[in-house]
Amino acid sequence: MSEPITLINAFTVPPEESERFLYRWKDNARSMTGQPGLLRARLYRCLDADAELRFINVAEWQHRDALQAATATAAFRASTQRMLHDPDLHLIPRPALYQVALDLHPGDTL
Amino acid sequence: MSEPITLINAFTVPPEESERFLYRWKDNARSMTGQPGLLRARLYRCLDADAELRFINVAEWQHRDALQAATATAAFRASTQRMLHDPDLHLIPRPALYQVALDLHPGDTL
Repeated sequence: MSEPITLINAFTVPPEESERFLYRWKDNARSMTGQPGLLRARLYRCLDADAELRFINVAEWQHRDALQAATATAAFRASTQRMLHDPDLHLIPRPALYQVALDLHPGDTL
Repeated sequence: MSEPITLINAFTVPPEESERFLYRWKDNARSMTGQPGLLRARLYRCLDADAELRFINVAEWQHRDALQAATATAAFRASTQRMLHDPDLHLIPRPALYQVALDLHPGDTL
């Protein structure tokens, strides 16, 4: 499968644990930036204090196989476990695979 | 406030109403693409049939004022109401404002 694919993970995180989340997310991301097939990853932080989806990671990959290979590495698995089992971090992750359905620019007609 | 801002709206939609959602989303987006300040909007569709967040809209704006002006137009308000009150569409929207916390490219060190 050679089409680009996007992993989107929307996280519920208590506001007071935001910095802890960022620390753990960077630890996790560090194992991804050197993997072949990663195009770009953006982590969005919500500006609303009471947001359900406080952080949203949008990671674009060249194709599904590259993403699967990257998530199968020992480094990624270990850092994911550290994030999910950190006693100081109470998060709900929602990872899923997406494709772009529509890509709009200024002045586009629909 | 002149910083770029991102409106992210994650939608829960029953799988069988996906096409109806796309129809209504295009109707809504049509009122946005001509508005000053819109940089880009991407609608992501989930590849998993049982996804909680079936569609995620990521819309980048030049600044918060531009977004607020665009969402205040009569055309946007009317199409939003048509989407939210469509008897054939049972969606849960989660609109919120975000800023990019981290932007990673291949080979970046963290």
